Amino acid sequence: MLAAYDPNDSVGILDSYFPEASFFTEFERFDRHLEKLKRQGNPIHYLSICSPNYLHDAHIRFGLRNGANVICEKPLVLNPWNAEALMENEAETGNKVFTILQLRLHPELVQLKNKLQHTGTKHQVELTYITARGQWYYTSWKAEMPKSGGIATNIGIHFFDLLLWLFGPLQSMEVHQHTHDRAAGYLELQHAQVRWFMSINADTLPENHKKAQKRTFRSITIAGQEIEFSDGFADLHTKSYEAVLQGAGFGIATVLPAIEMVHQIRTAIPKLESDQQHPFVQLPQSPHPFQ
Amino acid sequence: MLAAYDPNDSVGILDSYFPEASFFTEFERFDRHLEKLKRQGNPIHYLSICSPNYLHDAHIRFGLRNGANVICEKPLVLNPWNAEALMENEAETGNKVFTILQLRLHPELVQLKNKLQHTGTKHQVELTYITARGQWYYTSWKAEMPKSGGIATNIGIHFFDLLLWLFGPLQSMEVHQHTHDRAAGYLELQHAQVRWFMSINADTLPENHKKAQKRTFRSITIAGQEIEFSDGFADLHTKSYEAVLQGAGFGIATVLPAIEMVHQIRTAIPKLESDQQHPFVQLPQSPHPFQ
Amino acid sequence: MLAAYDPNDSVGILDSYFPEASFFTEFERFDRHLEKLKRQGNPIHYLSICSPNYLHDAHIRFGLRNGANVICEKPLVLNPWNAEALMENEAETGNKVFTILQLRLHPELVQLKNKLQHTGTKHQVELTYITARGQWYYTSWKAEMPKSGGIATNIGIHFFDLLLWLFGPLQSMEVHQHTHDRAAGYLELQHAQVRWFMSINADTLPENHKKAQKRTFRSITIAGQEIEFSDGFADLHTKSYEAVLQGAGFGIATVLPAIEMVHQIRTAIPKLESDQQHPFVQLPQSPHPFQ
Amino acid sequence: MLAAYDPNDSVGILDSYFPEASFFTEFERFDRHLEKLKRQGNPIHYLSICSPNYLHDAHIRFGLRNGANVICEKPLVLNPWNAEALMENEAETGNKVFTILQLRLHPELVQLKNKLQHTGTKHQVELTYITARGQWYYTSWKAEMPKSGGIATNIGIHFFDLLLWLFGPLQSMEVHQHTHDRAAGYLELQHAQVRWFMSINADTLPENHKKAQKRTFRSITIAGQEIEFSDGFADLHTKSYEAVLQGAGFGIATVLPAIEMVHQIRTAIPKLESDQQHPFVQLPQSPHPFQ
Repeated sequence: MLAAYDPNDSVGILDSYFPEASFFTEFERFDRHLEKLKRQGNPIHYLSICSPNYLHDAHIRFGLRNGANVICEKPLVLNPWNAEALMENEAETGNKVFTILQLRLHPELVQLKNKLQHTGTKHQVELTYITARGQWYYTSWKAEMPKSGGIATNIGIHFFDLLLWLFGPLQSMEVHQHTHDRAAGYLELQHAQVRWFMSINADTLPENHKKAQKRTFRSITIAGQEIEFSDGFADLHTKSYEAVLQGAGFGIATVLPAIEMVHQIRTAIPKLESDQQHPFVQLPQSPHPFQ
Repeated sequence: MLAAYDPNDSVGILDSYFPEASFFTEFERFDRHLEKLKRQGNPIHYLSICSPNYLHDAHIRFGLRNGANVICEKPLVLNPWNAEALMENEAETGNKVFTILQLRLHPELVQLKNKLQHTGTKHQVELTYITARGQWYYTSWKAEMPKSGGIATNIGIHFFDLLLWLFGPLQSMEVHQHTHDRAAGYLELQHAQVRWFMSINADTLPENHKKAQKRTFRSITIAGQEIEFSDGFADLHTKSYEAVLQGAGFGIATVLPAIEMVHQIRTAIPKLESDQQHPFVQLPQSPHPFQ
Repeated sequence: MLAAYDPNDSVGILDSYFPEASFFTEFERFDRHLEKLKRQGNPIHYLSICSPNYLHDAHIRFGLRNGANVICEKPLVLNPWNAEALMENEAETGNKVFTILQLRLHPELVQLKNKLQHTGTKHQVELTYITARGQWYYTSWKAEMPKSGGIATNIGIHFFDLLLWLFGPLQSMEVHQHTHDRAAGYLELQHAQVRWFMSINADTLPENHKKAQKRTFRSITIAGQEIEFSDGFADLHTKSYEAVLQGAGFGIATVLPAIEMVHQIRTAIPKLESDQQHPFVQLPQSPHPFQ
Repeated sequence: MLAAYDPNDSVGILDSYFPEASFFTEFERFDRHLEKLKRQGNPIHYLSICSPNYLHDAHIRFGLRNGANVICEKPLVLNPWNAEALMENEAETGNKVFTILQLRLHPELVQLKNKLQHTGTKHQVELTYITARGQWYYTSWKAEMPKSGGIATNIGIHFFDLLLWLFGPLQSMEVHQHTHDRAAGYLELQHAQVRWFMSINADTLPENHKKAQKRTFRSITIAGQEIEFSDGFADLHTKSYEAVLQGAGFGIATVLPAIEMVHQIRTAIPKLESDQQHPFVQLPQSPHPFQ
């Protein structure tokens, strides 16, 4: 790594990986440094972005205009039109944008995709993803809908992309819940009917998980049968970066349908009564801890 | 932990320790929350401070005035008069301030102190402390003298306190170097003559350390004999906190001589020629990476 | 003025009034300076607060605990419980809090109050207050309900206090509108029935005002008769400060009913159908410019 | 004005000039808005920059890359290499950078330039510029050398450009003083020998100015004769902007010699003894108010 920028300077962790990286707390000085590297014939080739979601597209443009390809953490952007604007910026600059869709590299899920038989009948799928977060979450930028996109966008984008990849394009949807700590809904995809539930509230964890003090629960069932993919996450992130460097990264067009989907979920008016609810929709609600 | 405040909200690490802690990014909302806890009969008992050094005294006052005892990371404050003002604030509020002097709890060093014989002849001591930091250090608040106090204060305060504890009060001093990446000098203590050198520049590490890719070097020799204390650091921080809770913490008066010493080092005009130099003073200088 | 604190340092205007005032951009350094003044026997006597509304109570506490009386711009606080907590802080510290209720000092309105005859029949009052703001308002803290309290609180508090002062305590209310750019409702006071409308949107100005390029419209009618008070505002602010210094300032208890009123307006669910609407409720709505 | 960006949102002044301007407190959202305007066929044509000096070049690049010409307040940049980099950015983007050199438009000074006869003998020039600033200056970014460039750069750039314009290129220089509140030196120009003094400390004002409570003193003497140019400043700024819009703005190459000059002044080691001192160098020194 040549250079890093973070408005916050508590970055001692850099010592363990890139002690020689230049570091800046102001984007202006970072910009000046990148210009200097370019003029010295030593330009950056990739800019990797890990900032609050709503800043992604501006940071990506910053990289493209500085002559770099860009790797951006999920979700790439919050709205479809942001992604379309970035495609134009790619064309203007000749540089490329890549995103991280690590579940598409998970061995068990790759195997599942290869094994799935799509017939006339749709698969019945239930997706549950609970990853408990502490109280801090609710006062961080992640709790602000315009900044993070909310639970479904911030926590769920990987899973919505996975569903589209496995079961084909979206035909229709319902949203049943979308609060500060959880979201749930129903998706009619080309080859599946999906009931989904996502949450950051530890109270929504299954009882046996709570007893075992586990704070994450991931489950996909197809026709009532559990897909096992608890393991195998360790090196997916590394694999994702390797794929980009080898020219096999996922670009804007690939992730666009998932961005359209979470945008639609975010702006939908929840339907309180429905036959298509995920069973966890019945769990008791929790008040917002700081309101 | 009941509540935490950090202007920066990238605090996901809280999930691993205190998921139930309230969290705030503005001191004003934190203040309001502490007031509320107090009114509800559930006040905080201890406020633990880990902020940029130059803010310590204001943050300590904040805690004292909110009815809490305060535990503050090193250095407690930058200047002796800041410490004296805090003593008055203790008296005004009836609450206490504690600091962390973990080396005084290190088993090997406790043993050394017990073993040391102070006779008419002063011990000849050489102290070397190198802990390499990456380029980020030079653009962080730690590199700004008015904020961190500089190398000797920020990196060295523990060792200067140790020396005073082992060898008695300061009689006179010289400073030989004090730059962006290193400091060196000579101390005449009641029972020792100390040549010291501290650095955050990896180039100053001994060759065998560089080869072994070690980035920290701590050495104290007395009469040419190495004091071995590489291990035993792991739980000193926990022990320090336990001591405070058991009423055996180190207060302002205890740490004041070390604060006086680093203040004196900070404001001294380096003496370029001296017979009392630590041998590493001869190492080649490095330019500031961002100037 | 001895000292000032503003996180933003574009304060060249100080040169025209208080070139000798010390100035700080961090509350911690401001706190240290106030402590120093106190220790030097030259303490501040009054702290004047003009910060975003939701920070007022913490800033007031800061002043009280530093040994100063506090003068705080309107609205004193956002919620009644914040005001009650401050009363306890007054008791704890022995210092006082004052707020600015400048309309109570306006000569025409003082005269009106003296002239008003309260009989068994309630006065029919219509209050209209439009003060146009540019697009910047909607991206500033003033547009965030948790920070400013919204239109009725931020723009209206002076007028609600005026109504209570003129016509006695609140008996019941309705809210008819409360959006990003306007608020409207109905108040049943002891001696009046009030239809009110407030707005920051220039489109809601009366046509003759728009033509004359006037951007502010203030109107109070009692039984259809206009109370004239367009002039006489120039020195009310100065008078308010003078009153505080002469021991005739308005304290927390005085402003509490108005704070209770705006809190109630803020949390009310707007009633879309009502016979008690202010006529401007029928004006066409405008979308939020940045959503 | 279409849009504005300021990290600080206390911009109510916009209401008096551009109530319809969009406003942003984050550069990322500003960037997104400019992109959107461009895509809508309504791009900005000029970006006007008025930010802390050390950010100018990054902000200029931001404008150039967004397809706009840029007008930047003085000093354009702090160092000659920043200006040279910007010339390359102009070439890359096809957009232009303009700066404000308002003294070159001052009627009296234009007349002076036309009248001046350059013979073999150099003019003897004395330049004095004192503009008193309050204590706030010393805690603002303007007091930080790496951010403002210091007194000579931040206060003096207009006058150094004027001198170069009137008397031709720099041949040699001395710097006699350069502290937190004043700077002084000697310039050997092609057609003049200049003794200069600049200050923000009110104590350095001539006695009659102090008595008259004037806080600014500007004086240029040639061969002991005062050039009168106290008036005529009022509309120079407007004229400067008009000139840019009419294609007669001052570009990077024009201002480069003045930037080279202030850079040289900034990095010079003051010469304490010299025969070429401005008389005000003898005034008593003042300590830094916050150190």
